[in-house]
Parts: sequence; C-alpha cells; structure tokens
Amino acid sequence: MKILFLNGPNLNMLGQREPEIYGRTTLSEIEATIRRLAKSRGVEVDFWQSNLEGELVTWIQESAGNFDALVLNAAAYTHTSVALRDAISAAGTPTIEIHLSNTAAREEFRHRSLIAPVCRGVIAGFGSMSYSLAFEAAISLT
Amino acid sequence: MKILFLNGPNLNMLGQREPEIYGRTTLSEIEATIRRLAKSRGVEVDFWQSNLEGELVTWIQESAGNFDALVLNAAAYTHTSVALRDAISAAGTPTIEIHLSNTAAREEFRHRSLIAPVCRGVIAGFGSMSYSLAFEAAISLT
Amino acid sequence: MKILFLNGPNLNMLGQREPEIYGRTTLSEIEATIRRLAKSRGVEVDFWQSNLEGELVTWIQESAGNFDALVLNAAAYTHTSVALRDAISAAGTPTIEIHLSNTAAREEFRHRSLIAPVCRGVIAGFGSMSYSLAFEAAISLT
Amino acid sequence: MKILFLNGPNLNMLGQREPEIYGRTTLSEIEATIRRLAKSRGVEVDFWQSNLEGELVTWIQESAGNFDALVLNAAAYTHTSVALRDAISAAGTPTIEIHLSNTAAREEFRHRSLIAPVCRGVIAGFGSMSYSLAFEAAISLT
Amino acid sequence: MKILFLNGPNLNMLGQREPEIYGRTTLSEIEATIRRLAKSRGVEVDFWQSNLEGELVTWIQESAGNFDALVLNAAAYTHTSVALRDAISAAGTPTIEIHLSNTAAREEFRHRSLIAPVCRGVIAGFGSMSYSLAFEAAISLT
Amino acid sequence: MKILFLNGPNLNMLGQREPEIYGRTTLSEIEATIRRLAKSRGVEVDFWQSNLEGELVTWIQESAGNFDALVLNAAAYTHTSVALRDAISAAGTPTIEIHLSNTAAREEFRHRSLIAPVCRGVIAGFGSMSYSLAFEAAISLT
Amino acid sequence: MKILFLNGPNLNMLGQREPEIYGRTTLSEIEATIRRLAKSRGVEVDFWQSNLEGELVTWIQESAGNFDALVLNAAAYTHTSVALRDAISAAGTPTIEIHLSNTAAREEFRHRSLIAPVCRGVIAGFGSMSYSLAFEAAISLT
Amino acid sequence: MKILFLNGPNLNMLGQREPEIYGRTTLSEIEATIRRLAKSRGVEVDFWQSNLEGELVTWIQESAGNFDALVLNAAAYTHTSVALRDAISAAGTPTIEIHLSNTAAREEFRHRSLIAPVCRGVIAGFGSMSYSLAFEAAISLT
Amino acid sequence: MKILFLNGPNLNMLGQREPEIYGRTTLSEIEATIRRLAKSRGVEVDFWQSNLEGELVTWIQESAGNFDALVLNAAAYTHTSVALRDAISAAGTPTIEIHLSNTAAREEFRHRSLIAPVCRGVIAGFGSMSYSLAFEAAISLT
Amino acid sequence: MKILFLNGPNLNMLGQREPEIYGRTTLSEIEATIRRLAKSRGVEVDFWQSNLEGELVTWIQESAGNFDALVLNAAAYTHTSVALRDAISAAGTPTIEIHLSNTAAREEFRHRSLIAPVCRGVIAGFGSMSYSLAFEAAISLT
Amino acid sequence: MKILFLNGPNLNMLGQREPEIYGRTTLSEIEATIRRLAKSRGVEVDFWQSNLEGELVTWIQESAGNFDALVLNAAAYTHTSVALRDAISAAGTPTIEIHLSNTAAREEFRHRSLIAPVCRGVIAGFGSMSYSLAFEAAISLT
Amino acid sequence: MKILFLNGPNLNMLGQREPEIYGRTTLSEIEATIRRLAKSRGVEVDFWQSNLEGELVTWIQESAGNFDALVLNAAAYTHTSVALRDAISAAGTPTIEIHLSNTAAREEFRHRSLIAPVCRGVIAGFGSMSYSLAFEAAISLT
Repeated sequence: MKILFLNGPNLNMLGQREPEIYGRTTLSEIEATIRRLAKSRGVEVDFWQSNLEGELVTWIQESAGNFDALVLNAAAYTHTSVALRDAISAAGTPTIEIHLSNTAAREEFRHRSLIAPVCRGVIAGFGSMSYSLAFEAAISLT
Repeated sequence: MKILFLNGPNLNMLGQREPEIYGRTTLSEIEATIRRLAKSRGVEVDFWQSNLEGELVTWIQESAGNFDALVLNAAAYTHTSVALRDAISAAGTPTIEIHLSNTAAREEFRHRSLIAPVCRGVIAGFGSMSYSLAFEAAISLT
Repeated sequence: MKILFLNGPNLNMLGQREPEIYGRTTLSEIEATIRRLAKSRGVEVDFWQSNLEGELVTWIQESAGNFDALVLNAAAYTHTSVALRDAISAAGTPTIEIHLSNTAAREEFRHRSLIAPVCRGVIAGFGSMSYSLAFEAAISLT
Repeated sequence: MKILFLNGPNLNMLGQREPEIYGRTTLSEIEATIRRLAKSRGVEVDFWQSNLEGELVTWIQESAGNFDALVLNAAAYTHTSVALRDAISAAGTPTIEIHLSNTAAREEFRHRSLIAPVCRGVIAGFGSMSYSLAFEAAISLT
Repeated sequence: MKILFLNGPNLNMLGQREPEIYGRTTLSEIEATIRRLAKSRGVEVDFWQSNLEGELVTWIQESAGNFDALVLNAAAYTHTSVALRDAISAAGTPTIEIHLSNTAAREEFRHRSLIAPVCRGVIAGFGSMSYSLAFEAAISLT
Repeated sequence: MKILFLNGPNLNMLGQREPEIYGRTTLSEIEATIRRLAKSRGVEVDFWQSNLEGELVTWIQESAGNFDALVLNAAAYTHTSVALRDAISAAGTPTIEIHLSNTAAREEFRHRSLIAPVCRGVIAGFGSMSYSLAFEAAISLT
Repeated sequence: MKILFLNGPNLNMLGQREPEIYGRTTLSEIEATIRRLAKSRGVEVDFWQSNLEGELVTWIQESAGNFDALVLNAAAYTHTSVALRDAISAAGTPTIEIHLSNTAAREEFRHRSLIAPVCRGVIAGFGSMSYSLAFEAAISLT
Repeated sequence: MKILFLNGPNLNMLGQREPEIYGRTTLSEIEATIRRLAKSRGVEVDFWQSNLEGELVTWIQESAGNFDALVLNAAAYTHTSVALRDAISAAGTPTIEIHLSNTAAREEFRHRSLIAPVCRGVIAGFGSMSYSLAFEAAISLT
Repeated sequence: MKILFLNGPNLNMLGQREPEIYGRTTLSEIEATIRRLAKSRGVEVDFWQSNLEGELVTWIQESAGNFDALVLNAAAYTHTSVALRDAISAAGTPTIEIHLSNTAAREEFRHRSLIAPVCRGVIAGFGSMSYSLAFEAAISLT
Repeated sequence: MKILFLNGPNLNMLGQREPEIYGRTTLSEIEATIRRLAKSRGVEVDFWQSNLEGELVTWIQESAGNFDALVLNAAAYTHTSVALRDAISAAGTPTIEIHLSNTAAREEFRHRSLIAPVCRGVIAGFGSMSYSLAFEAAISLT
Repeated sequence: MKILFLNGPNLNMLGQREPEIYGRTTLSEIEATIRRLAKSRGVEVDFWQSNLEGELVTWIQESAGNFDALVLNAAAYTHTSVALRDAISAAGTPTIEIHLSNTAAREEFRHRSLIAPVCRGVIAGFGSMSYSLAFEAAISLT
Repeated sequence: MKILFLNGPNLNMLGQREPEIYGRTTLSEIEATIRRLAKSRGVEVDFWQSNLEGELVTWIQESAGNFDALVLNAAAYTHTSVALRDAISAAGTPTIEIHLSNTAAREEFRHRSLIAPVCRGVIAGFGSMSYSLAFEAAISLT
C-alpha cells in the first residue's frame, strides 16, 4: 500500500513564517512524523512539494496506478485551481483535502474550495496533526 | 479527561435511511465504537442526540467546565443556526465540527457552515470514521 | 390508508389573527373538515401542530412506516429549515407542501422554499381549501 | 359558470416526449378528463394550447367577461413572460397557476415564477392531476 | 399595565462569558434592575428566557391580550427566524427589538434583522442599559 | 416626414382595465389625438399594436427606409426582449422609448429596460401625454 | 403658474466640455429658450444651478408652496442622493426628472435613479430639448 | 439524411444592416452555400427563418422524426427563451447552437445561453462560416 | 457635561410634511423638549441642523474636545455618507445614531447604515421619543 | 501557412480517463488526425501540450510571427487564467477557442470563459471533431 | 507650470486623529513639504481642502485652463461621488488619485473608487509620501 | 540596501505589442532606467521576469532576508493568484504593487487585486514611470 502526500505553494516556508497561523513545525518535520507513522503501519509514503500549479497537476496524474490514496494540501491553489480539480477527477486516485489552518475562520475567499467536491473528505484546522489524521483516514479509505 | 459528542437533527435516523449518502452504520453503533476507543485511551465520553436546536444550544452551554472538548455533528443546523455558533463562543469549549458526508460535494446551501469559524477544525466526508478521527483530534487539542 | 397533516409555527393562531392574510377559519375547523372528508373516503388521518422545529422533525421521522402520505404546512420554517428538508428525505414518506396564502405574492424571503425540492408537489394560496386539495392529491399519490 | 384552461409552449408534445418528467398522458387525454369532470359538475370549460406568447396574452385578455376563472399552465413562459403577467392583471379573471412537474425540484431558473404574484394560487408537481385539482379549486374560487 | 421581556438563546450565559462583547452583568441582575424600575413606575413586568425558538414563538403568541408591550432580545434568532417574525405579527402586541451589543458593528450576518420590520423600533448597543431604555420606550408606546 | 407609433402587449386593453395605473384613455383615443397633432404639423403617422413579440420585431424592421422615426411603447417586452433591441439596432430608425406609467416607481423587474440603450431617449410616466411628448421629440430628432 | 428648473452638479460646465455627450448648448442658452417658451405660455419660471447636494435639497424644500412644478436635472446626484429623494417627498411639489443624455446607454452606475420613484415621470436623452419637453409636461401635470 | 437549419429573429436582415458585427452576406446567400454543400454530400437540408419565438418552438417540435439534426441560430432568443430550450428537449433531435458573432465578446447579457445546455455543441464567431462548420458537425453527429 | 444633537437633511421640514412617516412634532418642539430634559439633569446641550453633508462633517469634527457625546440623526446621509463615518471616527466623540422612523421597515436602501459600525449604539422607530431615549443613553455613555 | 494547436492541463490524460465526458480518443490520435488533414491541405501544423499555465503563456507569445493561427484548448485554464487572455492579446495571432465537451452543459464555473472575448470564435462539444472543425475554421480565418 | 492639490473631507483632521491609519503628519506639514519640492523644481502649486463635495466639484471645474495637473485625495468621496467623477471628466485636467492609506487593505466599501476610471493613475498607501510621489508623477504627465 | 523588481506574465512582450495600452518602452529599457537610478542612489537592484506563477512564488519567498523591498508588477496574476498573496505574507518583505496601465479604467475583472491587501501600497497607471515612482517609494519604506 502506497500513499502520496502532495503539498502546494508556500508550504516549503512552513515553520519559518507566520507561526501564528501555521504553527512552528516545518514541512520536513511533518514529513518525518508521517514517515515514522507509515513505517509503524507498514505503509509506503511519498511526500512532495511544489509551488507550480502545473507540476502539481502532473504529480496528481502520476498518482494514478502508482498510489492507493492521495493526501493533498493544495494551499492557495485550493481556491483558484480548476486544473487541480480536473487532475483529481482524471487520475481517479481517492483524495483527501487537508489544511493546516481552519480556512473557514479566515478571509472570505478561502471559504470556497474548488477541489473539495471531487475529494472523498476534508480535514482542516489541526495544524500538523491534519497530516496524521489524513494518514489514518487514507488507510481506511483504500 | 472528558469529551462530549453532540449529534443534531435526523442523526437518530442514521443507518436506516439514505444509506447511499450516510452509510449503513447506526448512531448507536458509532457510539459503541467511540466508547470502545475512549475506554482504550482512558478517556471519558458522552454521546447525545437531539432534533431540537435549542436543546443542542443548552447542551453546548453545559459543556463549559464539564468537558475538555466537544465534537459536534450539527447536521442541518450547521447551515442555518447562529444560535449554535453563539453557544460555542459562549461555552468556550474547544469544538470540532464533523460531518458524515462530504458537504462540499452536495447542494450549494450545504457549502456554508455558520459554526466552522468558531470551531478549531473541521472533518467531513469519512462516514462514521469522521467520529474516530475527531476523537483522535480532540485528545490532542486539549 | 393513513395520511398525516403536520402544521408548523403560528398555525395554532389561525382564524384569530391577520384574517386579511390567512382567513377566519381556525385550525380546528380545518381539522374537522379534513376528518369529515377522510371519513367519507375511508381514509385515516392525523392532524398535529407544533411551534418547535425539532418536534416537527421528529414527527416527520415518525411518519415513516406509519403513514402513507404527509401533508405539510411548514409555515415560517418553509423558508429557513434544512432540518425539515432532511427529515422528509430521511423519512421517505411522500410529502405535499401546502400554504394558506400565495407565498409568491408576499415578501421576497417567502419565495424560496427549502423543502419543496424534496416534496412531490406544492399547493399554495387557496386558504383552508389548500388542505382539502392536498387531501385529494395525497390519496392519488399513494 | 365557465372555466378556461390555457396551455403554453410545448404542452402539445405532452405524453410523447420526456415521460420521466411529464408523464405519459397526452394533453387530449387531460382535456377529456377535465371535460368529463366539468360535465358532472355542470360547469362549462374551454381548453386551448399555443406555443405563441402573444396568442396566450390575447386569450387571457379574452377571458375577461367570458370566463369565471382561468387555469394557466404557462410552461416555459412562467419564468420569462412579463406580458402574461400583465395580461392576467389586465383581464382580472381569477387565475390559478399550474405545473405538471414540481418546478422547485428542477433547474434554478424554473424556481422563479413571474406570474405567480398575480395569481390566486399555485398547484405544481401532481402530473395530470394538477389539472383536476385546479378545476376543483377554480370552482370554489368563483 | 404589563410589559413582557423575552430573552432568546444564550442570554442565560450573560455575564459569565465573552464580557468584552456582552459585558459582565448577568441576566438576573438585568431582571432585578428592570423589576425595580417597573415597581417605581407602577408597571407589571415579566422576564423570561429560552434557548428554544418554538418556545419563544409560543410566549410571543401568549403576550396577545396579556401584555401591553413586548421587549424582545431575540439574540441569534434575530437573524434567522421567520417564525418569530410571524409570531409578532400574529400576536399584534407592540414589540421593541433590543440588543446588548451594536450588531451593525459585528459580523455581516448580524446586520440583517428578520424581525425589525414588524417591530415598532430598535435599540441596540447600550449593554444592559438597552433594557432600561426599552422599558421607557415601552411605557410611552402603549 | 413619417413617424411610426408601435404599441406592445396588453396596450389594446388600455382604458378598460387598471385605470389606477394606466389611466382611462383608450389606445384609439390616444391614436386620434396623435393623428390630430400630426395633421396640424403636416406629418404622416402610423399607429399599430400587437401582442406578439415577433410581429413587433417585423414591424420595427419594416420601419427602415419607410419611417423617419419610431415611437415604441414596448410594454412588458421592454424588460424581457433582446429581439426587440436587436431589431431596433438592425433597422437603424431613430427610436424613442415611451411608457404610460413611471416604471421606476413600480416592481423591481420593471426598472431594467433592455431596449433603452439602443434608443435615442426615454419618456415615461405622463400617461397618454407620453405619446404627444414623444411626437414632439420625434419631429426634432429627424 | 410657476415652474422651477433645478440643475445639479457640473451643469454649469454645459456646452464647454464633452460636447459629444452633452451637446454644445450652454445652460444659459437653455435657460433663455425656456424663458421664451414660458413667456409665450404666460408661465413664470425660475432656473437655478448648484454643485452642492445640500443646497439643492434646500431649494427643493423651498419649492413647496412657491412653485406648481419642479423640473429637476439632478445630474450625478441622480444616482447617489437619498437626500434629494427625501426632499422631493417632503416638499410634495410634482417633480419631473430630466437628463440631457440617455443615461441607460451609459455606464452601469448611471442606470439606477434614486429619485425617479418619487417623481411623476422621466425624460432623458433629448439634449437641451429634454428641458422643453419637460416644460410642456409640467404645464399639463399641474 | 436530413438536416434542418432554423434561424431566429432579425436574421432576415442579415447583410443589409450592422455589417461590422454580422458581415455582408445575406441569409439567402448562406442558404445557397449550405444547399450546395448539402448537395455535394448527398444530404437533404431545409432552411427556415422566423421572428416569432412560438413559431420556432413549433418548427423545433416538428423536427422530431423528420430531421436527423437541427442547426439552430436562435439569435436574440438564445438569451431569453426557456420555450426554445424545452422544445429542443422535447423534440430530442440532436441540436447544434450557432452564432455569426462571437457572443462572448459582446454585451454581458449575450454571454448566457439558455439553450446551450440542451444542445450537443456550440459554434460561434465565424460569420457565415459558422453555418458550414455546423453542417460538417451535424453530419458527423448523426 | 455637554451633548451635541446633530440633525441631517430634510429634518428642518419635520412636522410639516409626511406626518404618517415622521409624525407631527417639529424639530423646534423636539429641541425644546430636549433642552427642558437637559436643564432638569444639569446637562448642557446644543442642537443643530444642516442639509449639507460637508457642514455636518465639520460639526462632527468640532465635537471633538467640545462635547462629551454626540447624538446624530443623519437622515438620508445615514445610507450614503462615508464622509460622516470617517468624521465620527476622526472626532472620537462617543456617538449615538438615531432615527424617527423604523428604517428597517422601510425601503431596502434604508436598511444599511454606513455610520452605525462606528457608533456606540442605535435607537430607531420611536418618533420624537428617539431623541429623549438617546439623551438618557448619552448621559450614561459618558 | 502554419497553424499551432495548443493543449492545456490534463489533456495528456485524454482517452484514458473519464471517457463518458471526454471520449476514448487519445491526444496523440487527435494529433495524427490533424496532421493528416493538414498534409492533405498543404498546411503546416504544430501540436503541443502543457500542464503549466506559464508555459502555455510563453508558447502563445511565440506564436506571434511564427504561426498564422492558433487553436487553443485551454481546458481548466479557460475559466481561471487572465494570463492566457493577456498572452493572446499580446501575441495578436488569430485564435480559436475549442473544447471537447459542451462546457455550457457542465458545472456553473465552466460557463465563463476568460479567453473567449479575445478569441475570434469558439467551438465546443464535438469531442475530437472540435479539433477538425477548428482546423477548417483556422484556414478560412487567415 | 501649475499643479493643484485638492483634499477632501476630514483631511483637515490629519495628524491629530487615528495616527495608526493616517500617520502623525498634519496637512499643513504635507503642504509645506510639497511647496518646498515645487519651489526646487520651479513649479507653482496650490493646496486646498474642503469637507463639501460640491465645493470640491467647483474647484475641480476651476482647474480647467488654470492648472496643468490635479492631484486629488478625495478621501471618503472617492467611494461615493459620481459628481467628482463628472467634474474630472468635464474639466479635462490630467488628474492623479492619491490616498494616504492602502485602501485595498481596509473595509470592503473602500475598495471601489468611482473616480479612478477617469484619472490617469492612482498612488495609495504611502502616507504623506503619496503626495510627493504624485508631485513627481504630475510633472511628468504634463 | 537591495530592492527586487519582479515582473509577471507577458511583461516580456512589453513595448512590442498593444502600445496603446502599455506604451512603447521595453522591459529592458525600464530595467536600464531603474539600474541607472539605483546606481545614482547607491542602491542595489535585481530585475526578474517570469510567466510562471509558481516561479514568481519562489522568487518572492527568496526575497526574504535577501532584499529590503520588493516591487511587484504581477500583471495578470494580480487578479487571480492567492499563491502570490500568500508568498508575500510568508516572505514578509515590504512589497509595492505596481501596474503600467490604470487597471481601474479597464475590464471589471482587473478592478480586484488579490495581492494589494498584503502590500504596503499601490502605484498604477503611469506607464514605465510607475517603476521609478515605486523605486522612490521603496527607498523610503525601508
């Protein structure tokens, strides 16, 4: 069993900037936690990040046939990208949308997710724990 | 440590009707699962359901001082109740909003949650697993 | 064959107040007319009223298996209650939405019905005759 | 006593097309049913159909003084015709709006009726029975 | 002369929670102040609170004939309840809408009051003094 | 010099119905007044009415080359007809939009005119005098 | 008989600037034409202009009892001034709204007139002739 | 194999008016081109035009069973006619929506097509070539 | 202690016009009542009126340091003036917004107050009593 | 003569996924068809695909001077990319927008095209035939 | 060469109030800086302020022919005044819109500028430096 | 001291295309001007351009710690990119938004800037001078 964690724009800055919104844990630390969790469960995981919408589209496409589930923190592209949505539909890999912050408590434009309707479920607001919860959910989805 | 699970209108019908949306598990079965989980973790839980908005308001108020976290499946009231929102703010108990279905993939009027902005986080779309994931999240919140 | 007539908030005031909108017939007089009609057709009817949204939700749920059709004058809750809508979907009892007044000729906020999309049909504007017409319709529905 | 039944665009296709929405009864069969009903009640009826908005306007005007009530299935023009609305106001004949399907459960643009505010009442969603219910209502209106 | 003070959802929490918005005075203290004021003016008052929309509807109905004026702090239901609005219209008791906080300075959804159009006037933003001002206004209304 | 007066749906009912909105003058009386005025100025006029949108479209087209100005009371079609607008653009005859009533003081949907942007000017609210004013304006336009 | 012509902001620039929209006639020339017309009809007229919303409000108020009709070219204030609207209602002088240009053919924000609903009628798009047409209309109004 | 070309309001004016939008080719010339094309392909075509919405509705209905495909330039009715939409659904003939101009580059109200959702495809902006392209598409559709 | 009462456009007409909306009391009579009240409480008051938005802006600015509270009936400018809002913020004088009529029960455009968010509270709908209630509130504010 | 075919995000998945929406033909097969067509007409074509918005922008820019026409299936970027629109305007190459599916019959957010207003025309809904039709159109454009 | 600096409502309060938004520099200090700058460049400047919309309108008109450029800080009137916009168009003086604060980062209603579309450019958010930057820009414009 | 100038999509085409909107100066010429200016002030500058949203995101991130200010002409991405906005917030480098054209005078969709709320200020409409003005502003910011 294999799960792909995809991270969108600016998540490479995690832990260094705006800790009042996103916390102080870096993306590498989250990756390490998830890899430990995965090992203990005998699950394979990959963990990628890109600032490019089109690269994320390509990686979602590549998940088809290669991964059993996709955990996607699309960050800013959540609210603007029809291309990511279409990639999820095209790939067909069961996908979970996650967010570090509770987007519903932030600016109006962050309340609409273009990708949620083609995902299985959404987990938002638990900081880095959103990743572990999604890991648990992903195992059960598949 | 004590966690309160509150269930809103029509959740007493769970498992008996519209299984294509909500699954076949009954609310009692979910309660049983959560109680088992809680026991294994040494956590106390309560698990209540009401069809009355005002009764849910009262119970949320009563969580203040008596519970360390609140897991709330407000069902239909999610989209229409300012009273529940104000109760959550007034009680101050850390609250997690959950849904069985992925509300973002359903009718337009289910896309807006009036209570999400005063909750810590949201978990939606994982069927009865939404409850277990919220249990895990609640433990870490507190 | 059994038909349930459910009446929402303020309908207990019928005939006593605002006769220019709702007419001078009381709810008891309407009930009497419907019971006479039902008797003449060999149909069983129940006729309940509540000001509580949650109580109406519970009664709609209880119609499942116990009644062949539901005639629902949800009054003010027509325009604000997702909970009633979900109860109708959950119960599965064929439901007819009725109104005494022609809601389309009144304030803007009365033009949208949250429950109509899950009902079989709508009858509005005929005063107490809306009930008798719905009775006829309900018999043919089932 | 005389009642005019007016039928708008595409109702001449009834029973031949899209039976999943409109049923399998033809307009002639509905007319026959209504004529039988009318005869048994000693009421005179006319039953016309046109695809032309302007012709329907003219016929509504002609109902003034010649008919005691008008039952109008304006079909598609329900949602787009201010001219029909003005004709109903100008003619002053008590008018009942009817629909075969439950328009509230269909596309968004079918939720608004331009003519309902100048009608006495609305009956929608009962297939050909909408016509018989309107006949009963029309008799009582006048 | 008799005046009824009705208090909506979460007002039972007053003074204990969110003092930065609602102040530190409890509802009992406000009631005591109003009772003192009433006594000094030779006016009878009642002072009730409920979290249940339907119970508030019933109490408003009961004001008809029993009270000369109604002072209503509908709290969260101000923005969502057509049922309260209809109850005020049905009861016909002259009604004053009050709020502790200045709702116009808070979230967008608190700017619209569904009940204001059927009230005589509105007083908002003066904390517990909103009640005394409404008491003065109520005496003059009747 | 020739001026065409075109009258839209329901204007054939003028003077007989809803005099509180449209006055008591009939369309024939208005025509007579305009013909007298025209004679005194040595201007030729035509004066037509139709309930059919498409017939009005055809007549507007025919004004091209045959009339020096068009005075158009499009009535209900003012608010719904792109076809009339396109006909005015296509014909190129200088056109004046007129209304008997002050449409800005009536229902919301009468506030938008689809044809005004392609007309030279608008005269509304002066009852039958709107026609004489438009006659004067039309003479000066050409 | 006395008619007041009031001119709003920037109309003092008429004829000097943007002739492609407003023509080349100055406000003084229009005034002269109207005064000649008035003399020939034995009517008294006044003709004022101000760039100050509040001054226009005062002048409209002063028309009460002193003038039989008011012709108002409110220019930019047409679209933004509730104060002018309230002044017209308060004064009670029959008022005609005029515009030089066809506002419906210009920017979106010029399509809404806040004052039209309290005027008797509207004349727009005929350049300086809008004033003469309004003069004729004003005579007949009173 | 038979294809029907239907042309809506004002298309009879083609080539004579507004050539900067619609070009200089007349509808007869387009018909001639299409008939030549059809002959060379051994396909039968009919080519009709009407300014009347209701007549277009009737002709669309008549295409059922008599034509294998319908090419529809509904012109102005594209944006306002639910009746045409319903006729296309009722007839069931595969339909292609065409436009001479690129409607997306014109006024806002031309951006919404009420009929496109029930057509197979849309071709817009190629002048008279839109007809030939639709002919090619129609042949392949059937 | 000093309180400034500022009155906006058209309030100089009070008592003379539209008594069904604003009552029959003149602004001078209200001023007299307030001055009596103030005297009895040992409070100094000023009472000014202007039709000019900019003059009101200046007076609000001048309240800074010279008055302890401001009672503002901005009338029509309530709904259109950002300048008044900014003046209130700039002056910093505690401000109470008042209205004679219940603006929430009138036209849609009177439901939004641009100044309420920067005021301490709002009192509306009590006719001239709105001034006395505001006087009481102002004393307690400071 | 040279024509560039540009394909946007996810079109590399064509034929492998969601055939019920996009058909079973792959992008390579479409390319082959177009190359055959081009050869037979003596036209040179290029056929590129990218998931990256910025790369598509660059390629559109490069079409300037190198290609006589551009056929653009922007897929998801059709609805979100101002950058593509600006690139088309900047390059000045005559551009045809195409879609495999009939976007007007899909989700609301696919109804708006940001690029259509700067294209010559649009062809949508004909599956892979949309490409051949666009080829024909492109030849005639230039 | 002459440049006019116009300042709108409440800017006379600058430096004394709300320094967290507008800074601590007074308008006189800004004027002094600009006069020094102007002198060093051999440019003549005028620097006026008014709280009256109509006075600003008049001053903008007077800039025509007397000034080579206009720098306008319309403050609150930026968002509500069509009259200022029309004055800028009428005067024809090249105009630069400036703001002390970054209006895009403040309340929603400050995001729309009614005057920007008729200005040459906009400078906002640099505190008193916005004036110096506009001075530089103005010199280059002319 | 170091300032980074970032240029978004299509700005590499500057000076070659659409000079009526963007002028005839190329991006290299602007860069040269800015480098000269920078040299004369003893400031270091970098000047980059990309058509890729994600690359711009990365560069903004890299400005953190390496540059004292960021001047950003995000071009088309101004209106669609939440990712750029988040990058600016994350990097924390003081940022100035610039535009060559006056975006407020162009299409509706260019009126909203997603990045302005997280920038210090905005300069738009001065052609290549927008860059020099921003340079001056940037120096003073830091």
